[in-house]
Amino acid sequence: LFFGCFTSIHGCKPAKAVVSSELPLGSGLGSSAAFCVALSAAILALSDSVTMEFSHQGWQVFGENELELVNKWAFEGEKIIHGKPSGIDNTVSTYGNMIKFKSGDLTRLKTNMPLKMLITNTKVGRNTKALVASVSERTLRHPTAMASVFTAVDSISSEVAAIIQSPVPDDLAITEKEEKLEELMEMNQGLLQCMGVSHASIETVLRTTLKYKLSSKLTGAGGGGCVLTLLPTLLSGTVVDKVIAELETCGFQCLLAGIGGN
Amino acid sequence: LFFGCFTSIHGCKPAKAVVSSELPLGSGLGSSAAFCVALSAAILALSDSVTMEFSHQGWQVFGENELELVNKWAFEGEKIIHGKPSGIDNTVSTYGNMIKFKSGDLTRLKTNMPLKMLITNTKVGRNTKALVASVSERTLRHPTAMASVFTAVDSISSEVAAIIQSPVPDDLAITEKEEKLEELMEMNQGLLQCMGVSHASIETVLRTTLKYKLSSKLTGAGGGGCVLTLLPTLLSGTVVDKVIAELETCGFQCLLAGIGGN
Repeated sequence: LFFGCFTSIHGCKPAKAVVSSELPLGSGLGSSAAFCVALSAAILALSDSVTMEFSHQGWQVFGENELELVNKWAFEGEKIIHGKPSGIDNTVSTYGNMIKFKSGDLTRLKTNMPLKMLITNTKVGRNTKALVASVSERTLRHPTAMASVFTAVDSISSEVAAIIQSPVPDDLAITEKEEKLEELMEMNQGLLQCMGVSHASIETVLRTTLKYKLSSKLTGAGGGGCVLTLLPTLLSGTVVDKVIAELETCGFQCLLAGIGGN
Repeated sequence: LFFGCFTSIHGCKPAKAVVSSELPLGSGLGSSAAFCVALSAAILALSDSVTMEFSHQGWQVFGENELELVNKWAFEGEKIIHGKPSGIDNTVSTYGNMIKFKSGDLTRLKTNMPLKMLITNTKVGRNTKALVASVSERTLRHPTAMASVFTAVDSISSEVAAIIQSPVPDDLAITEKEEKLEELMEMNQGLLQCMGVSHASIETVLRTTLKYKLSSKLTGAGGGGCVLTLLPTLLSGTVVDKVIAELETCGFQCLLAGIGGN
C-alpha cells in the first residue's frame, strides 16, 4: 500500500524508511496506527503537492487538508493490518488530543485539561478477535443485562467527555475534575470486568496502583495488554517513582504519557 | 424484646438460653438474624399454644403459621440490632432455601438445584452504613450510569432466579446451569466493583479462586466481609481442599455451605 502510495506520487525513485518507536508493539496502544500515520505523513511530506509550515520549532506541520489525507492513507494501512479497524487509532495518531467514538462516528474533542497517565504494559499477549467474540457471546446469552452494561458505559463516556471539555479555572478545579475522572475510571473498569475482558495481570496492576490510591482501567481490548493509571497533577514524583518501581518488580513495563496534547 | 416475649408467654419463670454458633459474627452472613430466629423459635417451642411435629429425625418442626410467628418476632429483634433491616436475613433463617428480594418485597423461591458454596470470611471489618451511603453518593454523582448498573443487577438476579427454579433433568443440565450461574456471579461482581463496594481482600479471594477456574462474588454489603464461591457438583474434593488451604494461608477463614436446602 505505502509502496503504491509512494510510487504514484514520486514515481520509481529509491527511498529508505527508518522506523524507530517507543510504543510497545501489539499491546493495544495503537502502534500499528502510529506507524501507518508516520509513514503516510513522510511520503506525503516528500511530495511537492503538499504545503507545510516549518514554523513549529523546526518541525514540519501539515495543514488541515493534508492531515485528512494522511489519516485516510493511514486508515487504508490499518485495514490491511487489522481487517476491520474502527479508525480511532489512526485518527488520534494524526490529529492528537482526544476523540469520542460512538457507533462508527468519530468526534474530535477539544480538551481543556491535559492529563498525565501511567501506561503499564502487562506484556500478556491478547487475542482481540477472541475477546470481542466472547463479549458478543455473553451479550447473546444475557441480552438484557448486557444492554444495561453498555448503556452505563455510554453514560460514563459522555461524562468523561463533558469533564475534559469544560473550562478549568484553577488548580482546585483540576483536582476536583481528576477525582471525578478517577471515579469514572473505576466504574468503567467494573463494567469491563462484568463483560469478562479483564485478566489476572490487569487485576495485579489495579491492586498495586490502588495501594497508592491511584485509579486505573484497562485500555484496548483487555485480556492482558495495557492498563492506564491517572496521575493527578498534585501527585508527588516520589509516589510515581514508587508505583513504577513496584509495577516493574511484577515484570511489567511502565511508560509515562501526556493525554490530550496536540 | 425476647425477655418480654418469654414472660408474656411463660410468665416469670427462670430460664437459661445457651447459644452456640458456627457462623462468624458481624461478617455479613446474617448471624444476628440466625440468633433472633433461634431464640424466637426456642421461646415459642416452650409455649403450650404451639403445635409441633417430632417426625423429622428427632427434630421439632414448626407448621407454617408458627414459622410466620417466629419470623415476625425475629424481625422485631433485627430492628433493635440493625435499625432498618430488610427482613431478608430472618426470613431465610426461618424458612431456609432462597429468597428473592426486590424493593421491599420478599418472595420465597422453590429451588430445583441445591448449590454448594465456599464461604470465605476475609475477616476485614465492614461498615455497612458507610458503604450504603457511599453507593448512594455515587448514585447522586452519576445518576444515569448508576441507574443502568442497577438495571443490570436486577436483570442478573432475575436470570439467577429463573435458573435455580427451572427443572434439572440430569447431571449434564446441572453442569450447564452451574456454568451459567458462574458467569452471572462474575458479571454481578463486576457491577459491585462499579458501585465501589469491593475491597482489596475481596479481590485477593477472587484472584485465588480464579486460579482454580472457580467464580466468586462478594456477599453482604461488601468492603470486606465474606465472599461466595460456587463449587460445581462435579468438582473434585482435592481441588476444594487446595483452594481452602491457599485461602487460609492468606489469613482467611473458609466454611462450606449448601445453599437452597430446607
